[in-house]
Amino acid sequence: MKASVIGGGGYIGGEVVRLLLQHPEVELAQVTSTRHSGRPLRAVHPNLRDQSDLTYVTDDEVRDCDVVFLAMPHGASMKGVDRWSSVAPVVVDLSADFRLTDHARRERYYRGPAPDPIWLSRFQAGIPELNREGLRGASHIAVPGCMANAAILALHPLAAAGLVDGAVLVDARTGSSGGGRTPDEGSHHPERSGALRMAKPHGHRHTAEIEQACGVPVQMSVTAIEAVRGVQVACHIRPSRTVTERELWSVYRDAYRDEPFVRLVRERSALHRLPEPKILSGTNFCDIGLALNSAGDHLVVVAALDNLVKGGAGNAVHCLNIASGWDETAGLSFAGLHPV
Amino acid sequence: MKASVIGGGGYIGGEVVRLLLQHPEVELAQVTSTRHSGRPLRAVHPNLRDQSDLTYVTDDEVRDCDVVFLAMPHGASMKGVDRWSSVAPVVVDLSADFRLTDHARRERYYRGPAPDPIWLSRFQAGIPELNREGLRGASHIAVPGCMANAAILALHPLAAAGLVDGAVLVDARTGSSGGGRTPDEGSHHPERSGALRMAKPHGHRHTAEIEQACGVPVQMSVTAIEAVRGVQVACHIRPSRTVTERELWSVYRDAYRDEPFVRLVRERSALHRLPEPKILSGTNFCDIGLALNSAGDHLVVVAALDNLVKGGAGNAVHCLNIASGWDETAGLSFAGLHPV
Amino acid sequence: MKASVIGGGGYIGGEVVRLLLQHPEVELAQVTSTRHSGRPLRAVHPNLRDQSDLTYVTDDEVRDCDVVFLAMPHGASMKGVDRWSSVAPVVVDLSADFRLTDHARRERYYRGPAPDPIWLSRFQAGIPELNREGLRGASHIAVPGCMANAAILALHPLAAAGLVDGAVLVDARTGSSGGGRTPDEGSHHPERSGALRMAKPHGHRHTAEIEQACGVPVQMSVTAIEAVRGVQVACHIRPSRTVTERELWSVYRDAYRDEPFVRLVRERSALHRLPEPKILSGTNFCDIGLALNSAGDHLVVVAALDNLVKGGAGNAVHCLNIASGWDETAGLSFAGLHPV
Amino acid sequence: MKASVIGGGGYIGGEVVRLLLQHPEVELAQVTSTRHSGRPLRAVHPNLRDQSDLTYVTDDEVRDCDVVFLAMPHGASMKGVDRWSSVAPVVVDLSADFRLTDHARRERYYRGPAPDPIWLSRFQAGIPELNREGLRGASHIAVPGCMANAAILALHPLAAAGLVDGAVLVDARTGSSGGGRTPDEGSHHPERSGALRMAKPHGHRHTAEIEQACGVPVQMSVTAIEAVRGVQVACHIRPSRTVTERELWSVYRDAYRDEPFVRLVRERSALHRLPEPKILSGTNFCDIGLALNSAGDHLVVVAALDNLVKGGAGNAVHCLNIASGWDETAGLSFAGLHPV
Repeated sequence: MKASVIGGGGYIGGEVVRLLLQHPEVELAQVTSTRHSGRPLRAVHPNLRDQSDLTYVTDDEVRDCDVVFLAMPHGASMKGVDRWSSVAPVVVDLSADFRLTDHARRERYYRGPAPDPIWLSRFQAGIPELNREGLRGASHIAVPGCMANAAILALHPLAAAGLVDGAVLVDARTGSSGGGRTPDEGSHHPERSGALRMAKPHGHRHTAEIEQACGVPVQMSVTAIEAVRGVQVACHIRPSRTVTERELWSVYRDAYRDEPFVRLVRERSALHRLPEPKILSGTNFCDIGLALNSAGDHLVVVAALDNLVKGGAGNAVHCLNIASGWDETAGLSFAGLHPV
Repeated sequence: MKASVIGGGGYIGGEVVRLLLQHPEVELAQVTSTRHSGRPLRAVHPNLRDQSDLTYVTDDEVRDCDVVFLAMPHGASMKGVDRWSSVAPVVVDLSADFRLTDHARRERYYRGPAPDPIWLSRFQAGIPELNREGLRGASHIAVPGCMANAAILALHPLAAAGLVDGAVLVDARTGSSGGGRTPDEGSHHPERSGALRMAKPHGHRHTAEIEQACGVPVQMSVTAIEAVRGVQVACHIRPSRTVTERELWSVYRDAYRDEPFVRLVRERSALHRLPEPKILSGTNFCDIGLALNSAGDHLVVVAALDNLVKGGAGNAVHCLNIASGWDETAGLSFAGLHPV
Repeated sequence: MKASVIGGGGYIGGEVVRLLLQHPEVELAQVTSTRHSGRPLRAVHPNLRDQSDLTYVTDDEVRDCDVVFLAMPHGASMKGVDRWSSVAPVVVDLSADFRLTDHARRERYYRGPAPDPIWLSRFQAGIPELNREGLRGASHIAVPGCMANAAILALHPLAAAGLVDGAVLVDARTGSSGGGRTPDEGSHHPERSGALRMAKPHGHRHTAEIEQACGVPVQMSVTAIEAVRGVQVACHIRPSRTVTERELWSVYRDAYRDEPFVRLVRERSALHRLPEPKILSGTNFCDIGLALNSAGDHLVVVAALDNLVKGGAGNAVHCLNIASGWDETAGLSFAGLHPV
Repeated sequence: MKASVIGGGGYIGGEVVRLLLQHPEVELAQVTSTRHSGRPLRAVHPNLRDQSDLTYVTDDEVRDCDVVFLAMPHGASMKGVDRWSSVAPVVVDLSADFRLTDHARRERYYRGPAPDPIWLSRFQAGIPELNREGLRGASHIAVPGCMANAAILALHPLAAAGLVDGAVLVDARTGSSGGGRTPDEGSHHPERSGALRMAKPHGHRHTAEIEQACGVPVQMSVTAIEAVRGVQVACHIRPSRTVTERELWSVYRDAYRDEPFVRLVRERSALHRLPEPKILSGTNFCDIGLALNSAGDHLVVVAALDNLVKGGAGNAVHCLNIASGWDETAGLSFAGLHPV
């Protein structure tokens, strides 16, 4: 299957390229970058040295293929969806354009034009753990935001079991790569290094995706931490009734027993007791753990993932694997490093 | 005034030494370390090179002086309090031994022997912003824990104004120096570097200090982050009635208007909108900021400080300054660095 | 082919395990750890969660298999070589025990007993780029040290071409994982974080390996830098005659044209102009670049690699691939991440 | 004495401001920034919160005062020197404009116009350890570059004693703040974090300053490391005759015995055996150490400093202290932190 990546000069697009280059069922056809057109991939992503002979092309040069991945800034996918749908029968969008199905919810978080409702209705939510059946044979897939994906996987089993009382506090921590490739004052190394910066105490856009997927009210605070890759969400929940940790684990085990990319973390050692992102760099895993206080009225569910992989490119490839009927783990077998 | 530091081989003790060496009213008399006795201070704290000719002595060698700072592991201060009270008329304790006044609350968080109630009653809480009058002329002072101090300064004005509904979630993030000087698996650089480790999702001991000082119920979660110095607490609060941000700022301004070491952070730039610890390294400041969501039902108060200074040694010196009737800022004027 | 790893609780051993678990030709049979016997692999290496059901066994429990990897402290391999050679027909040693063929050279750098000369003579140098023929069908393989491997690959082509005048200065920079798994004062995070510590200005043991392989005198200085993984060597060389950069590149291209794991870095951008280790984490690549000053009397050759992979476990697997006649890149295809 | 800072929005200018605000003999009069005119200092340098009520002014608004510090990009000082010399009787320049006295040497390293020779001749080299007498009563002072200063202090005693044979290799490592305040691709956190980037293998401009001050030929390689602040130089030297370490120490002790800001580091512990920058953050110290190999033909001299303080702003204040006849350490007493 021939795949092209639109917007392969950015960080998410670069990860799609990296994963497709090692995918047993995919041949990488073309990669676009307006800014880097004509240069070899390695000039932008030095990890791709000797991995490919491709050079970047412009969007206009893209030829028909079997699947296109759209890794462009928000707003660009909805503008180009006609074109890209004519280029390839399968379109996987990594932007926010086709994630929110409810117009009013979208309006609260995003300015600018809304997507065409017809196109919107064709997109499947790219969340394999919640929408596997919808993804089988899908032609249009919209994968969720990085922090949203972590929070959705952390919260959905509880919410579905009716175990959440009131609003959930999602305390999200994120590395610098989530901010993309364009330098600004906030990403300048002397300012960003060692940061612990609550950039968004309320109202982050990913809130909308979590509420849509889980059906519970969410307060979300986002803190930029010292890391390049990695997202961790700590979800603080008041259980709606008396539960034990044992019962909670059973809810999560039932939800994720057969999932290839969700791992439940239940260790005794404080070092690895709850998930953290550093050992997940480069992997498509979302690790989930939990802790209930002895009074039983405060539950913390912690999820971690690599924002560019399970929070973006890897999840997109997973969705394609499902849509195409391939082994779900094809091209996604990297286990992660320790120490790191 | 002659001062001695008991336990000057550790990180907090080393900071007391550093500050006293530059204090205009204090002469550093002796510094003890069981392990390093006989070695120069710089062999343990290389920043003290050329700052002092002292060598470490054992506890037994300590002579009478005007004030002793106790920077020993929890439990050691209560054992030695008779001795140290006979060595100096003023005792400043940096351990947890004399912080908790209620026996039952103490029992919930600490094992082992409790302090003698008579001695306990002599200790003043080393929180200048809450107990300035109690500290004037005090002979015995117990300074709070690093994360507790940040949370207390963040919450007390709100709690005192009756603005807190239900339990507060204190999400604390801490650098590695808070764990002290002794290497273990968790502090081994390959494991600790880049960590985002929720080491204590519930029940951290500092919870007790915050509840004691503020009189509101607290849930506290502690995450180890990539940093050597620095503590940040994000306090998530449901206001007990409708308030505006303007009104909240007025509560904080009234509380801290004349405080030399509490700064209110109210910037428009996301970069410096809320406090973060890195620019506070080496300073005695606690920076406080807040954000209320538009619905008015979720308030985040963020406080940051250097765990070894405002969270320990600097605060102890501040308390001594008040007890002695000196300029409160004596020896504590370092403004912090940027960039860093 | 059944493989067992002796000493799989350490960092190098853990990497051998990780790589073998994904190797198409290998079945991981047993992993030993004296300290962790009975625990699952993931308790020590959290990246191995859900990758294997094995638990650690003791050395005594190791059964016959096809290949053993020895990842033990220096000295242990020479003690156990009889045993391990009876356990498996192929022994790959990651320690220093069988690296140095000359007794006098060894004596200058290592204390303690020397290896039995008969066993020593059976070991092939585990440097595919220099000793590929020797490795084909080899039964005993000794892979080089991490910094030595980087320096050897950087210097050998020049030395073989007679282009080196006098002693080479090898300025090596290394992350903390090279120090192994045991915590000590120097690896304690508050001390090691942000370090730029010239731990060994002269006489590092890897000097002996570089001199043996390249036949030129070497001065080596080793600096610990802020990183967990990664080695970079900057080799400062006085050319023995007038050369151009073009001629130098041609020497390197001739040497490494067909090498799957050596990449020549020749970019115009300062950002990626010379190799650096961070994008090599987890990969088996050694990247090499060079710069000659305009006067032509000072040549800098820079090489970078992941100390635990190309500097240890990955190189060992590469050697096994050659010894076994498999595809040389089997199990070693991870391309590395960007950004990271 | 009234002081103004021209270019106080940058990193070096911000450090001058920080130091002057705490200087006992100086009143900070005005601080300029074209970009930030009208904003409070803290909006740019958050460490200055509550330290000053000043707001930035434009260069045109600067009034007469007693001393001006010029912290502008290279080229701007020579353009403005007439104006600034009329504004204040003392001018301290932190740019490179007036550092190089030899026209030919300058031409090899800098493009663009050269400074007026008359003005150039009025500037004293701002290197107290080499030019204290010249600085007394000086009206115009040009302080050296950060890496140059470290290398000059490391090499000058040896060079003056005729102990250097041939060219010295200066291997310099530098944090990101040395690159200034303007974001670019190389300073973007995901790219710069964890870097070990030999940005300049040859020909860095500071080479010229070192050769000018020390009179020996220098090869300089510059590597960007993971740090915000800090410079370390490792100087590799072939002694011109047989020397002992003892004799070398005596050369350095004679040179720096009475220097308030040069410290000789001669420890036995590998942890603190040679200087490193992290404990020097915020201080005006240059730490120097050395190691001679057993053959006596390879000497490593290591120097470390904070590039923004001893490598810039602090050194400028030190020079002003000498020029004004004040206590040399006035305003420069911060001892640095440990751990950090």
